Amino acid sequence: MKRLAVLGSTGSIGVNTLDIAGRFENEFKVVALSAGTNIQLLREQIERFEPKAVSVLNEALANALKRKISPKKIEVLFGVEGLIQITTLPEIDLVVSALVGAAGLIPTISAIKAKKSVALANKESLVMAGKIIVEEARKNGVAILPVDSEHSAIFQTLAGRSKGEIKRIILTASGGPFLNLPYEKMKEVTAKEALHHPTWDMGRKVSIDSASLMNKGLEVIEARWLFGVSTEQIDVQIHPQSVVHSMVEYIDGSIIAQMGITDMRIPISYALSYPKRLRLDLPSLDLFHMDGLTFLPPDMERFPCLRLAYRSMEVGETMPAVLNAANEVAVNSFLEETIKFTDIPAIVETVMEDHQIKPLTTLDDALRVDQWAREKTKKLIEERR
Amino acid sequence: MKRLAVLGSTGSIGVNTLDIAGRFENEFKVVALSAGTNIQLLREQIERFEPKAVSVLNEALANALKRKISPKKIEVLFGVEGLIQITTLPEIDLVVSALVGAAGLIPTISAIKAKKSVALANKESLVMAGKIIVEEARKNGVAILPVDSEHSAIFQTLAGRSKGEIKRIILTASGGPFLNLPYEKMKEVTAKEALHHPTWDMGRKVSIDSASLMNKGLEVIEARWLFGVSTEQIDVQIHPQSVVHSMVEYIDGSIIAQMGITDMRIPISYALSYPKRLRLDLPSLDLFHMDGLTFLPPDMERFPCLRLAYRSMEVGETMPAVLNAANEVAVNSFLEETIKFTDIPAIVETVMEDHQIKPLTTLDDALRVDQWAREKTKKLIEERR
Repeated sequence: MKRLAVLGSTGSIGVNTLDIAGRFENEFKVVALSAGTNIQLLREQIERFEPKAVSVLNEALANALKRKISPKKIEVLFGVEGLIQITTLPEIDLVVSALVGAAGLIPTISAIKAKKSVALANKESLVMAGKIIVEEARKNGVAILPVDSEHSAIFQTLAGRSKGEIKRIILTASGGPFLNLPYEKMKEVTAKEALHHPTWDMGRKVSIDSASLMNKGLEVIEARWLFGVSTEQIDVQIHPQSVVHSMVEYIDGSIIAQMGITDMRIPISYALSYPKRLRLDLPSLDLFHMDGLTFLPPDMERFPCLRLAYRSMEVGETMPAVLNAANEVAVNSFLEETIKFTDIPAIVETVMEDHQIKPLTTLDDALRVDQWAREKTKKLIEERR
Repeated sequence: MKRLAVLGSTGSIGVNTLDIAGRFENEFKVVALSAGTNIQLLREQIERFEPKAVSVLNEALANALKRKISPKKIEVLFGVEGLIQITTLPEIDLVVSALVGAAGLIPTISAIKAKKSVALANKESLVMAGKIIVEEARKNGVAILPVDSEHSAIFQTLAGRSKGEIKRIILTASGGPFLNLPYEKMKEVTAKEALHHPTWDMGRKVSIDSASLMNKGLEVIEARWLFGVSTEQIDVQIHPQSVVHSMVEYIDGSIIAQMGITDMRIPISYALSYPKRLRLDLPSLDLFHMDGLTFLPPDMERFPCLRLAYRSMEVGETMPAVLNAANEVAVNSFLEETIKFTDIPAIVETVMEDHQIKPLTTLDDALRVDQWAREKTKKLIEERR
């Protein structure tokens, strides 16, 4: 029986995590949940799973929630402090870190320091502070289990192999809704069009990142830290059918690939139940009724976000945190329709160029740079209006 | 340093095995070789690898060979006895069993009984006597390492997983040169056409079996014994591009596939160096410049050999040995142009229908049935002329 804390329980990954926990009640006990503002869904989850503690975005929401539930049976916390408290509860074995964006960093680190294994869906924490997280995990002897479908694919295909046998990791990308759109037309795409992902159903920020390929860029950085390979060993291939979720090529030329239907419950359940697999009773991947599987090199000209992500890794230290923060702010502005889709990489690049690289040794280094890049990006966007 | 005996060293698998052994002289020492009649190539291999012992088909060939080499440095043996002697040499660690057809059975068993690990390319031995071989391997604590590209793919993708986690094994098949040929035209195909395999370069018997899909049927039986699953858990999918060499679907819906270029040195080196991988410096699989990967169900009507193989497994006991022997004789007759391509399954089916199933408990049971089926098949073919 694994005892879980689920951070971001009302988001897409959180809901799917609880679906798995609910199907396998002999395997998992949900001890703590955290949500942002979706109190209604959180309340339903509390009724269903009866956690010991929950945390919400702020005090007002915590009070609103307390009025709706029986607060004697459950501790209602809020804010970053609330997240830290629930990740460090002594009875928790595994923390599912599924917050979106930079907000995931502090609770992820606090879970690791409390010697909890982490099922990590929050790629931003590895992008911002991968070196620190990996080092803390090593020091505390805990596992970081990938939840992203691509990284889960790699994790599954790496099973038991030594790092020296890896020739390269091949991250696949659907290419998003604008795969074949000329650059000129990209300038005019709307948030609604960008949110329409062809093969996966995801949250809003991730969907925009998928459309710009920044998501794949962040995944390259994430893979570098999760699997301890160099950035040069990580390739991206566009695979519009999203059937092969990623691959590893070994030194003997053998490629091991993981495939499946586009259902996040497969990678989530693998992270939750690792090292064993659970019987999910999902429909089998139907290879007979689909287009031929194709693979293409990514177009770094039309999708500069991917190029910027590789460049940030080559520079290293605080640069990926700058990329990540500038992107997060720019994506929000695009969703609010204050900037164009093609402005996202232009703004991120400007902020990166303006950044004085610093050594990344403490969490504060990452957080300070994150703060700087956000303010810088907001200012840039203000100036453009 | 692994010390090898290579049975069938002048065949396609044998030559590729020696290519690997020659590239990794710090990993492998070739102690013994066996060939059938290709004395010229065997002599070159002897000069290159300086084995301690070799074995050829018969005494006349052994004498011919002795006249051409310096016999003081090397023991020249012949026949089944010769094969048994070289597989049981005390200094051998791994026997590469790459004889074609039923001839591989006795040396394979003798290697296992002498507690040698076996890299098995001779699928017929598992088809004839899988139950006995698996039981002997278990009793003697030795590994049977698959060399076939499909079974190597499964072996690689199964790494470390428990049998209970397998939902199904998916063997891929190129479909051979007659994939889209109407049945009526199949009656008229020549041996030359059947020998022209679209994606793999193989020996003559295997090429014909690939064209009829009997090869895939034998592989289903082989997989059943190698991986200990039931026949119902083994599916065949036609995959004309031969890029995915086989797959395993797990109970969580995840499919792990092995891909690569069509070069037998990849699966051979994996069997030789298992559990580690060797750096082969082969060209990477180029996924960018190929047709889309497609998968189709096999047509059991046009390719009755596959259906017969499944049926033989359902009946079990001595029936797969009958299938194998009848097929071997029928394929030879087709190569000699005494029967048509479509006669192969018709003849195999007639022999199977005529067979009184017996329990398979000793090697003699398998050999007797093999003998009976060969004679029966020859007689049938005689009667048709």
